[in-house]
Amino acid sequence: MFEKVFENIDRTIPLVHNITNYVTVNDVANMILACGGSPIMADDMAEVEEITSICNSLVINIGTLNDRTIHSMILAGKKANELGNPVILDPVGAGASKLRTNTVYELLNEVKFTVIRGNISEIKTVYAGSGSTQGVDASIEDLVTNHNLDEMIELAQRLSRRTGAVIAITGEIDIVADEKKVYMIRNGHEIMSKITGTGCMLTAVIGAYCGANKGDTLDSTAAAVSAMGLCGELAYEKLLKTNGGTSSFRTFLIDYMSVMNHSLLEKGSKIETR
Amino acid sequence: MFEKVFENIDRTIPLVHNITNYVTVNDVANMILACGGSPIMADDMAEVEEITSICNSLVINIGTLNDRTIHSMILAGKKANELGNPVILDPVGAGASKLRTNTVYELLNEVKFTVIRGNISEIKTVYAGSGSTQGVDASIEDLVTNHNLDEMIELAQRLSRRTGAVIAITGEIDIVADEKKVYMIRNGHEIMSKITGTGCMLTAVIGAYCGANKGDTLDSTAAAVSAMGLCGELAYEKLLKTNGGTSSFRTFLIDYMSVMNHSLLEKGSKIETR
Amino acid sequence: MFEKVFENIDRTIPLVHNITNYVTVNDVANMILACGGSPIMADDMAEVEEITSICNSLVINIGTLNDRTIHSMILAGKKANELGNPVILDPVGAGASKLRTNTVYELLNEVKFTVIRGNISEIKTVYAGSGSTQGVDASIEDLVTNHNLDEMIELAQRLSRRTGAVIAITGEIDIVADEKKVYMIRNGHEIMSKITGTGCMLTAVIGAYCGANKGDTLDSTAAAVSAMGLCGELAYEKLLKTNGGTSSFRTFLIDYMSVMNHSLLEKGSKIETR
Repeated sequence: MFEKVFENIDRTIPLVHNITNYVTVNDVANMILACGGSPIMADDMAEVEEITSICNSLVINIGTLNDRTIHSMILAGKKANELGNPVILDPVGAGASKLRTNTVYELLNEVKFTVIRGNISEIKTVYAGSGSTQGVDASIEDLVTNHNLDEMIELAQRLSRRTGAVIAITGEIDIVADEKKVYMIRNGHEIMSKITGTGCMLTAVIGAYCGANKGDTLDSTAAAVSAMGLCGELAYEKLLKTNGGTSSFRTFLIDYMSVMNHSLLEKGSKIETR
Repeated sequence: MFEKVFENIDRTIPLVHNITNYVTVNDVANMILACGGSPIMADDMAEVEEITSICNSLVINIGTLNDRTIHSMILAGKKANELGNPVILDPVGAGASKLRTNTVYELLNEVKFTVIRGNISEIKTVYAGSGSTQGVDASIEDLVTNHNLDEMIELAQRLSRRTGAVIAITGEIDIVADEKKVYMIRNGHEIMSKITGTGCMLTAVIGAYCGANKGDTLDSTAAAVSAMGLCGELAYEKLLKTNGGTSSFRTFLIDYMSVMNHSLLEKGSKIETR
Repeated sequence: MFEKVFENIDRTIPLVHNITNYVTVNDVANMILACGGSPIMADDMAEVEEITSICNSLVINIGTLNDRTIHSMILAGKKANELGNPVILDPVGAGASKLRTNTVYELLNEVKFTVIRGNISEIKTVYAGSGSTQGVDASIEDLVTNHNLDEMIELAQRLSRRTGAVIAITGEIDIVADEKKVYMIRNGHEIMSKITGTGCMLTAVIGAYCGANKGDTLDSTAAAVSAMGLCGELAYEKLLKTNGGTSSFRTFLIDYMSVMNHSLLEKGSKIETR
């Protein structure tokens, strides 16, 4: 299904510029390497445009915002837009503070995003300037389940129409949508929420996949979401065999991404389209 | 012994606001998740008060101080005081530089702490504006052992009287004390000093436990200290079986916290009271 | 061969001051502990001189530069020079942006370095203000192989003559050289480039070894480079046995450094001199 996506990653080794938070940055760098890309982190205004210019894509993650990095995000985003490079937004904790919410709005005004990935409460905030965010995890009432799936798909497609971006809403069921097409992905395991950074790592993998597959954003994003979820399932199976806990799970999650390929994903992906 | 402490954590899933250092921040986030809480890291002045307001507790760790974050610590600390939320201080490296020592004094003047946790030389610095700190580890002459236990307990209780905080001094023997009662805890393993961040992680676990157990600070802190030490013992046993080294130990340490519960701690804790 | 180097580390437990990037800082701290040193991270202008003064060596890594930390690097570097402490430079990504390249030149003007370690494109940038840098990895055309070994040795020795520093160029073959003597080291495994931070970690180990072995910089650097490569080989062997991926490899890499000693290195090192 995603054979070409993987071929392009192997061929390109996409260089991904990350302006990201200091909590999960190491996992993000290792995950980009594991999925076949090459990471570069740079957040100073004096260099972000130059760094973006040598990269295949840009990932903006607002997990630990400060005044210095907000300006860098806008500068780098505009440059990536100018170059036609994919720009991915992870609105971590949008809704949890005015700073985060307003920064997301400022970014949406200044930068054209190729993909926006968040949990449902973050995506709601992006959409509406409303939505309840508890911490950086999806609020329990806000999980995407079979129950509210149609409503979430509608939200994703409306936001895609507004922004021109592919929208990825991750939760129990993951939705990847543009205006015309929707992927519903049922990979993943609930233990993924028991380590920090699975969202940030996924966004970075989307950045790598899209950086190597310009013009094929929807499929690249769906492939990344499904691959990440499948790695979570495989890592959980290995966890049980080794009597490990959440930190072993984190190790195995990155391990499986480092051996993921087209045929493994073909066998394990649980994707429907609409 | 600490059954209610664990029940409250499971029920509350305490959200812990961390203003912390960039060295161990990922371990801290994963450890908070492992112990049953939910972490949020935010250090910009523009959002710290708002973030603290949605959290159950605040952890201030001065491991990589800078001018920007010092102000955020004070703002967040005052807000948490106003809300009656527990505020935990980890005075990492206090005594190693004037910046750290003076920041600790400024924090003590501006913020009322619920718990202060450090090694003996850090706690001495907090107490006296003196004390020799080598790096961020306890100086060898300053380890809490059977030899100087009485003296250390007296120091802890005096500092508790001065500050109103529960004082946790960690070392070969851990002391957790308020004015009236003292726990002496003999869990732990010396290999814990061979990885970075065991102190920071413990302080964060204290933050989670206290956030879910307001009004039961002494017991919550003692439970956290004992649980962390027990995880260290179990992780070391597993290390021997797997022929691992210090990085495997780090993984196992977090693993064991993710499966820790009341009955495991009951069986393994080595606690005396005075 | 390096018996005395290891003896001095065990005896000194060198305290290493790191002004480094936030991507790999946790790995760097754990690797310093694993190799027998003690890390301290501090980057604020208000404390870096004081922190450097209590340390055995200083490691400057420009991986995530910003205006604030550049000044701190210069202040700390000058202080370490004044004290006669080894100062190690890791010019991460030099050549990738003007900020990085110019900062390296400014650092070289202001601070006398004891060791400079980078991949070939970084070292070329340091040497010539030119050189193509893709991301933070060595450009493929720029790997040190048997083919271009003589040329690289000449570059290293010229740069050593210009700067007075021991030069370590790491790649398929590692070169450690001063004006008079060259070590060629064939330890290591290609999977080391599939995790972030192997370069940063190596530079930090060099900082620890040199901090404990003042006046024996060339041998200390060669020992660190060989030990790191050997840990990579051993970690890869263990990876195969455990069906792991790149994140397990990272764990095992640090694990092996934590059990590395003189006799293990004696058996496994692949070093020639010229």
